[in-house]
Amino acid sequence: MDTLNSFESLEPKPRLTVVGAGPGDPELITLKAIKALQEADVVLYDALVATELLAYCKPSCEQIYVGKRPGESHSQDAINFLIIEKAYMYGHVVRLKGGDPFVFGRGMEELTYAQQFGLLTSYIPGISSSIATPASAGIPVTTRGISESFWVITATKSDGSLSKDFALALQSSATIIVLMGMNKLAQLASLCQTFGKADLPVAIIQHGTCANQKVGLGKAEDLPSIAAEHQLSNPAIIVLGEVVKYGYHNLAQTLFSSINQP
Amino acid sequence: MDTLNSFESLEPKPRLTVVGAGPGDPELITLKAIKALQEADVVLYDALVATELLAYCKPSCEQIYVGKRPGESHSQDAINFLIIEKAYMYGHVVRLKGGDPFVFGRGMEELTYAQQFGLLTSYIPGISSSIATPASAGIPVTTRGISESFWVITATKSDGSLSKDFALALQSSATIIVLMGMNKLAQLASLCQTFGKADLPVAIIQHGTCANQKVGLGKAEDLPSIAAEHQLSNPAIIVLGEVVKYGYHNLAQTLFSSINQP
Repeated sequence: MDTLNSFESLEPKPRLTVVGAGPGDPELITLKAIKALQEADVVLYDALVATELLAYCKPSCEQIYVGKRPGESHSQDAINFLIIEKAYMYGHVVRLKGGDPFVFGRGMEELTYAQQFGLLTSYIPGISSSIATPASAGIPVTTRGISESFWVITATKSDGSLSKDFALALQSSATIIVLMGMNKLAQLASLCQTFGKADLPVAIIQHGTCANQKVGLGKAEDLPSIAAEHQLSNPAIIVLGEVVKYGYHNLAQTLFSSINQP
Repeated sequence: MDTLNSFESLEPKPRLTVVGAGPGDPELITLKAIKALQEADVVLYDALVATELLAYCKPSCEQIYVGKRPGESHSQDAINFLIIEKAYMYGHVVRLKGGDPFVFGRGMEELTYAQQFGLLTSYIPGISSSIATPASAGIPVTTRGISESFWVITATKSDGSLSKDFALALQSSATIIVLMGMNKLAQLASLCQTFGKADLPVAIIQHGTCANQKVGLGKAEDLPSIAAEHQLSNPAIIVLGEVVKYGYHNLAQTLFSSINQP
């Protein structure tokens, strides 16, 4: 034990901080996240992270892109291995992930893996795209008298099916926010019709909070044609609920442009 | 029109920015929010906002507390009136609200009101307590293979009843996050029993992300006794779902202390 302790005092303690980068706009990052980037010895960053954020890193910090866009080959196993390897080699690894890493971000998986290999771990939440992307299109996920809850759901299950939760959500008064659903628009539209919600207001928002944001508005039964008309594709977020009516009002007035522009 | 235009060019343009202050920890504020505070002529701030954030305001900025803690008298009408009055008198009003103002925060109500009176409006999201408070107790709202969705719901309806949505949520695989539910713990526990979820892991978290954070863990049927044992009261957040098991693991190792401490 004495040997181990003295070894530890000489070497940098291997450490992982999982950090949320926010929804896209590089000014929607937290002070705490910036401090972590400034301290990092190695940063592993995802496809959806604004690269402007890497400017906070010190010059000696190694910056490694580990995105998973189609055609890219960074498997989760490879990322997990990199975290362990780099932490034992250099000390403090920051894992910078888009949005909030606990919202379909595998944040806890990476923390748990790192803990198994003896790393110190900590976590810094980010602004979740699931809430900020609708906001960026002028749509609040809740509003008194209109929506008393909101349900955030991924459309991508490992077996390719739609979650049964979606049918329950459609019977509720919740605002429904669907992530990773752009390949299931026809199924979503059909399910809305089944539950008598063909006319439910919907929005599809791509690149929310960013200068290249695109928004399509319409009815649930028209989800596929809304995407086609506005050329919307992944990564986009789908919002279903009466609160979407605010999107019409606010888009017309471009009231939320200040989110995107300095 | 010419007279009006020249009047406008002399006077500051009345303006409202609704800003999310985040979940409690003053370092969990965004750069964009800090910039808005630095530009503000008047700040109206809520009870749940960290007062350290007011240090970003310029010396001439008027800071007005408009909290709604029990016994305090700031009605929504009075706040709306203050926004309009101060914006026309001094220019840029920042409305600083805890968490994210579009998550049960009346953010859209205040924006809409201000628009009716001709104010320019903009919006800056904050980290929502609904996601960051569970995280602060080591609980991710989603994790692959355990929870494929999460539902955020307020337990406080104007007629005093529990939302019917709660019964739907209990039939799903969603992580359920209940806000403003500390006065309905017995009803929540009873409903969980009705839907065969008496054993569902639950957490109650007060002052999430802050140094004085308190956490109680247990089973759904024991919600009232968990609150009593750990002396938990409003404002606290209730989490129900299998992901709560991570709370046991992470609390024991105090792995998330870095959220609260510099």
